[in-house]
Amino acid sequence: MKNFIIPVERLISAFSRLPGVGRKTATRYAYYCINMSNEDAQSFADAILDAKEKVKYCTICGNFTDKDICNTCLRGDRKLVCVVAEPKDVLALEKVSDFNGTYHVLHGLLNPLEGKTANDIRIKELLERINKDKVQEVIMATNPTVEGEATAIYISNLLKPLGVKVTRIAQGVSLGTDIEYVDEVTLSRAIEDRREL
Amino acid sequence: MKNFIIPVERLISAFSRLPGVGRKTATRYAYYCINMSNEDAQSFADAILDAKEKVKYCTICGNFTDKDICNTCLRGDRKLVCVVAEPKDVLALEKVSDFNGTYHVLHGLLNPLEGKTANDIRIKELLERINKDKVQEVIMATNPTVEGEATAIYISNLLKPLGVKVTRIAQGVSLGTDIEYVDEVTLSRAIEDRREL
Repeated sequence: MKNFIIPVERLISAFSRLPGVGRKTATRYAYYCINMSNEDAQSFADAILDAKEKVKYCTICGNFTDKDICNTCLRGDRKLVCVVAEPKDVLALEKVSDFNGTYHVLHGLLNPLEGKTANDIRIKELLERINKDKVQEVIMATNPTVEGEATAIYISNLLKPLGVKVTRIAQGVSLGTDIEYVDEVTLSRAIEDRREL
Repeated sequence: MKNFIIPVERLISAFSRLPGVGRKTATRYAYYCINMSNEDAQSFADAILDAKEKVKYCTICGNFTDKDICNTCLRGDRKLVCVVAEPKDVLALEKVSDFNGTYHVLHGLLNPLEGKTANDIRIKELLERINKDKVQEVIMATNPTVEGEATAIYISNLLKPLGVKVTRIAQGVSLGTDIEYVDEVTLSRAIEDRREL
């Protein structure tokens, strides 16, 4: 590079840290930022600091919120808890409008290889909610991966003795997929969990 | 959205303004930022403001620089000028290591439909350089689009009477493409501009 400019390089490397952003995309973002008006750049920087400063975790469910308790916990049915790994999973589930329960964000999944044990994720907080709110059903909505499955089974084993109904989101073929291309494990689950029409 | 958080929404909308970023990607970036350490978030915000503040346009070529005159203009051959539309084009061309000339960034292309005329892009500055630096050759490296071609022809008509050699980057098939899928205009140019082996 003949024309190495330190502030530009610094901005490119800042953007490169975002998930899924390589150097080329980061450069595109950086050049766009430099061409912004001063007000827009200031407001962008402020938005980052403001979000970082004001957004905290809901003391009940662990999802992002700017209050102590998030709106979902305030309004939703606390006897029905949907357990997810990360705040972004809540975002996806919130689009399902007919769910009126609350969430519980674990902030991770059990992963012994990476040293994540039951104490590193919010399982203790979930157990506290079970007693306090007299939870009737816990829906395990962790990803259908090795870690997600293991975490779901682990939590289910903890909760069942407490008399809580523990369910797992259904696994099967997605809407619009081509049966031909569905992997055999998914297909086998879809057949196993078939339902009457 | 049951759980609308203003600072998060503001950050998502800031990221949405980046080129090619939709709401879903912006949300991913925003959630990543909120999970950053305070230092990283501060350094990200600083990088934006710092780049915006320190990066300006080179007084000669119009490319980004943090000095008055960019390194390329200081070291390159000023008698050979490569004309491009945007600073990002310079970035692509700088990877071509055997070019030792200088650049001239127009900051736009002629586009009568969008009201971009010759006075809105840096053509006057190019003409000044022609006289001042006794430029011998101008390479037109604008995009091979309607606007890029029109701008190249317009500038070429201005410069030829001044005795400057004006060239255009070659158009033809790209390395690795499949002739079968090349559009007919490109193929026709490639045949027209064929060279002896």
